[in-house]
Amino acid sequence: MTITHRPSAGTEAPPILREFWNLHLRRINDEIDRLLPSVDTAPSRLHSAMRHAVLAGGKRLRPILAVATHDAVGGKHDSIYAVAAALELLHTYSLIHDDLPCMDDDNQRRGQPTVHIAYDEATAVLAGDALHALAFEILAHRAPRQVMEIVAHAIGTAGMLGGQMADLEAEGTDPNEAAVVAIHERKTGALFIASAKTGAILAGSNAAVIADIEAYARPLGLAFQIVDDVLELTVDAAQLGKPADSDSRHRKITYPGAVGIEAARERAHELIEEAKAALKDFQGEPAILRALADFVVARNR
Amino acid sequence: MTITHRPSAGTEAPPILREFWNLHLRRINDEIDRLLPSVDTAPSRLHSAMRHAVLAGGKRLRPILAVATHDAVGGKHDSIYAVAAALELLHTYSLIHDDLPCMDDDNQRRGQPTVHIAYDEATAVLAGDALHALAFEILAHRAPRQVMEIVAHAIGTAGMLGGQMADLEAEGTDPNEAAVVAIHERKTGALFIASAKTGAILAGSNAAVIADIEAYARPLGLAFQIVDDVLELTVDAAQLGKPADSDSRHRKITYPGAVGIEAARERAHELIEEAKAALKDFQGEPAILRALADFVVARNR
Repeated sequence: MTITHRPSAGTEAPPILREFWNLHLRRINDEIDRLLPSVDTAPSRLHSAMRHAVLAGGKRLRPILAVATHDAVGGKHDSIYAVAAALELLHTYSLIHDDLPCMDDDNQRRGQPTVHIAYDEATAVLAGDALHALAFEILAHRAPRQVMEIVAHAIGTAGMLGGQMADLEAEGTDPNEAAVVAIHERKTGALFIASAKTGAILAGSNAAVIADIEAYARPLGLAFQIVDDVLELTVDAAQLGKPADSDSRHRKITYPGAVGIEAARERAHELIEEAKAALKDFQGEPAILRALADFVVARNR
Repeated sequence: MTITHRPSAGTEAPPILREFWNLHLRRINDEIDRLLPSVDTAPSRLHSAMRHAVLAGGKRLRPILAVATHDAVGGKHDSIYAVAAALELLHTYSLIHDDLPCMDDDNQRRGQPTVHIAYDEATAVLAGDALHALAFEILAHRAPRQVMEIVAHAIGTAGMLGGQMADLEAEGTDPNEAAVVAIHERKTGALFIASAKTGAILAGSNAAVIADIEAYARPLGLAFQIVDDVLELTVDAAQLGKPADSDSRHRKITYPGAVGIEAARERAHELIEEAKAALKDFQGEPAILRALADFVVARNR
């Protein structure tokens, strides 16, 4: 499979963001391709499954976010693309495991059959594990220790995995806003924040800048997940690249499920304003970060 | 669940090893207990599953090996127990995923129900993932970069995960010695070698010492896995703490399956002699490492 250079930010993004995105997406994807083991190397089937999952497409929002914060603070670290690639591998590993029959049992992702459908369940478990291990191998070689600490913590039980567990446990319960936010903060938010901080840390930013970045990325992650939930209710599977009924099929608690679609959209817009407001005294160039925030609510897939 | 301080090295171990083992096993187990999140912290069920898997027992051979090489070269690094604990978490994560229905479908491990039996399959997938992430969080805080690089590589597709994949792919094929050794080298050997090197690296050993340690750990890992395969054919489930027919049920290719039980035992003894011979010019105190090698073939569970 070749990398799909999807139109990425799409026509709903402002020109300044489209230019940035197109420039860096190619470098991120090239780095991902370089870092993933070849299918010609044993274990071929496992490497093929890893490539299938990662190269199927995807918005690359976490690596883009890392590159964007790095760029916004004037960073020129040559490891940024490798570190950003590692973030995407971690995100993809979580999707593969999330899609397993014992979890969300989804058969399509990024417009392609999920790994356990295209290969088999055992290969899907191992491919997720392998992307997880490879990400840390990349970080061990290329990232400052602080980045490794933050990323490992963000994907652990206090973050992403805790959110996945809470998401499963909440299935079929009455949705309420606080419960949904608590899940989103961990399941999506933690790696979003870690990705944003990673770019700034790699650039050697001071604590005040990193605090601003965190204050920006926290509402951004929540808004992203709310928009995700809304899109699943309002657009079709072909546009999403994944089944549009997965949440309802699993009786997932979602933000629109708790407050309704219109209130959810409104909340996403408020969060994006919060994200942008966090950059008002930003010691750097916040234009791309602001445009990225706008894109998160404007996107239609 | 409380930690089971099993008689560890057991009566088949020489007194010098029993004393060493008892001294350090307690510190390793205390460190594991300290590093695993409490079940009182959310997500409680996930933390409970992680503790179930890790604290059910187990020989702690990988952390003991790391502590033993560290000690053998005169190391006094206060991170050794945390780093050794991380190695056990990685080993345990691989066992949880290996035991899943889509993999080896085993319902007992370390004398306890496996995680997907005691909890459920989704929790087992996430508990494995969470131990994997926690191990790297510990290493990010406590280990030299070289240790992280070596360990991440050892558990990836060139090592442990590649071995697990090859093991699954070989099910039902004609066993031959070379194929079995190729699987063992990755599935068991890679993390054994990484564990042994970790202790020496943490102690600041030079390249010659680390090369000796690697030459010692490579045949040790192979001998360990051969003995494991032989024990599964010759002792009962109660003694093993896991089903004694798992390999045959899955038509796994095993060393005794390839060459017969007696030849397998003989090969294990030869490998142990190789392991001990690798220490003949060792710049350190090799007594415990030699005793540990003897124990690997003398053990009866």
